[in-house]
Amino acid sequence: MDYFCSERVSGLAPSVIREILKFSSTPGMISFAAGNPAPEAFPVEDVRRITAEIFAQSPIDALQYSVTEGYPPLIETVSNYMQKKHDSVKSFDRIMITAGAQQVMELATKSLCNEGDTVICEAPTFIGSLNAFRSYNAHLCGIPMEDDGMDLAKLEDALKREKNVRFIYTIPNFQNPTGITMSLEKRKALYALAKQYGVLILEDNPYGEIRFEGENIPTIKSMDTDGIVIYAGSFSKVLSPGLRVGYAIAPQPLISKFTVCKQVSDVHTSILSEMIADKFMTECDFEGHLQKIRKIYKHKAHLMMDLMDSRMGGKVTYHKVQGGLFLWCSLPKEIDMMDFCTKAVHKNVALVPGNAFLIDEKDPCSAFRVNYSTPTDAQLEKGMEILGDLIQTF
Amino acid sequence: MDYFCSERVSGLAPSVIREILKFSSTPGMISFAAGNPAPEAFPVEDVRRITAEIFAQSPIDALQYSVTEGYPPLIETVSNYMQKKHDSVKSFDRIMITAGAQQVMELATKSLCNEGDTVICEAPTFIGSLNAFRSYNAHLCGIPMEDDGMDLAKLEDALKREKNVRFIYTIPNFQNPTGITMSLEKRKALYALAKQYGVLILEDNPYGEIRFEGENIPTIKSMDTDGIVIYAGSFSKVLSPGLRVGYAIAPQPLISKFTVCKQVSDVHTSILSEMIADKFMTECDFEGHLQKIRKIYKHKAHLMMDLMDSRMGGKVTYHKVQGGLFLWCSLPKEIDMMDFCTKAVHKNVALVPGNAFLIDEKDPCSAFRVNYSTPTDAQLEKGMEILGDLIQTF
Repeated sequence: MDYFCSERVSGLAPSVIREILKFSSTPGMISFAAGNPAPEAFPVEDVRRITAEIFAQSPIDALQYSVTEGYPPLIETVSNYMQKKHDSVKSFDRIMITAGAQQVMELATKSLCNEGDTVICEAPTFIGSLNAFRSYNAHLCGIPMEDDGMDLAKLEDALKREKNVRFIYTIPNFQNPTGITMSLEKRKALYALAKQYGVLILEDNPYGEIRFEGENIPTIKSMDTDGIVIYAGSFSKVLSPGLRVGYAIAPQPLISKFTVCKQVSDVHTSILSEMIADKFMTECDFEGHLQKIRKIYKHKAHLMMDLMDSRMGGKVTYHKVQGGLFLWCSLPKEIDMMDFCTKAVHKNVALVPGNAFLIDEKDPCSAFRVNYSTPTDAQLEKGMEILGDLIQTF
Repeated sequence: MDYFCSERVSGLAPSVIREILKFSSTPGMISFAAGNPAPEAFPVEDVRRITAEIFAQSPIDALQYSVTEGYPPLIETVSNYMQKKHDSVKSFDRIMITAGAQQVMELATKSLCNEGDTVICEAPTFIGSLNAFRSYNAHLCGIPMEDDGMDLAKLEDALKREKNVRFIYTIPNFQNPTGITMSLEKRKALYALAKQYGVLILEDNPYGEIRFEGENIPTIKSMDTDGIVIYAGSFSKVLSPGLRVGYAIAPQPLISKFTVCKQVSDVHTSILSEMIADKFMTECDFEGHLQKIRKIYKHKAHLMMDLMDSRMGGKVTYHKVQGGLFLWCSLPKEIDMMDFCTKAVHKNVALVPGNAFLIDEKDPCSAFRVNYSTPTDAQLEKGMEILGDLIQTF
């Protein structure tokens, strides 16, 4: 039978890039393609103890229906944390708990964009967010990245030129895939531009807490005196992605709309996951855990960067990172990126071809993304040795 | 600031009915308005033990990212169960795990309906599904209910008349809110009509396993020789709604589209929830648990029906149920339903006004819905006494 598909979804056909990614789970494959936290970064003992306590103390609460906005104690906990540590909850804001930060992108697009309305985003940017925008037939407008974040002159051109711009999407810290962090000056200027043109900002910050070097830069949300910033936070990198817990901080009228949309999608986030996240933040050493995982990622990032320099130095250029999970590696023009990635996967090293992160996958792209959080140290060394040998053959 | 909203969401403004429902959580309120499982129906000891085992045996699997389609062992478990017990997995079908059955309605609508396309549904029907359809600006066409299910003559009229019908939505067992079960003859005839007119069926079956009397009737999916049925199943009533685990059984091309949509929404369902559901079905006495909860709901349903007869007999008519969680109660024409519900809530008994379940809430409606699974026996008795006294004043 031929099945009819909505226009939104027909535009979301699996891409050629997925074909390469499929190999990632082949036995023996060294995957630099994922974005998974390191297994040793999970607070297994804490979660085990917390979960046993939940089932000893309030098993019915953990199993019964809950409210769409989220488990009230977790909302309170996130509010206190984001307020005290990051000054990122304003008096007009409300918090809702979501099934991972990904859901914030979906709820924001569904609530705010009619089909054909414009979303401005960094180019390249996270494929999961691009696909969320695409799944509502948003018109995407990409702004090239500079070393300190989006090119603001081009952003202003776009704000002048584009019609019905609903929000500007940015990952200000250790952007996926480029690893770039937006400077404080650019954050201020971006906020001013959004305000001037009456456009919202969707600030996606999954990696902010895993800065392992350098100084923390204030969130754009912390500058939000006008109620124009939607902040998406996540427990995926600081606790566990499998539990699927994230949150939105946004002005109350927006949270109301997101709530109506979440109600018809999944009713509420797994209450057990929410209770675990709450107890982890309030009853365990959350700061100590962050220190621990920063140390893990600092080690892995430096190992990867050192190997990149020693094995592929002179051939590959990349942006040095102070946090996050990824390096964005550019090949010289004479090497065909897709050819390189295909040959790498045949030698059992999986990379993500850079065009996966473009607004139009068919645009030329000479970069690929590597992840250093998932592979072991031995895999990092072996995989980089293979890539180093491979690049010599080009 | 005035925030722009998408057209989809502006149509989903909170209704007057929600105002009444807000009172449900007032202290002292006897709520007949919810749809929560009875607390004593949760297999707390089993879940406690299972969860401890998961964190002892495979903690990293429970915390790491997983695949969008669902935890493979759970897919296998659901497949075996639905195949062996209900003959409801066809050779062309695939299964995906969702964040509750509600997500199946959302994924189906997002994947299958352009704005303005038609969804045919029973009238009245479950508000969560109606709102999922509305949230994509589907055009809703309601088919009145008879004692054995949808009026099929009216269904055929609609199939002839309506344009771009994408699916027929039905809850064949103990329909929410009416409690009506579709007869075998009507299931066959409904299937034949859908086939004839080239329209899909979305079969939502959250209550099928809590039949406490009478004979089980085959699912419409079991008749699906043509690949036209999407089946939505749920663990909410047979294990726990808080864990948010449901599933879709549908032809592979549809599951592919749902998967793309789920990927951009929540990436995957909580893996811990999925592992708990899998272990509960495979390592615990699932059939014994079903027997136990059927006994609980049989007792509560009969208590509620007996009280309805003794306290409100002659004034209120309702459809006798053999399963599910709800009674649908019709008031005589001289009593204003909304007035009755409002006065009830002021006397601390929360009901759901029937127009919550209509396609157009402003249509006349003389019925309300009561739930018997959430209140205790004492609350059922007290609440029905209050309603009995109240109806005398009309």
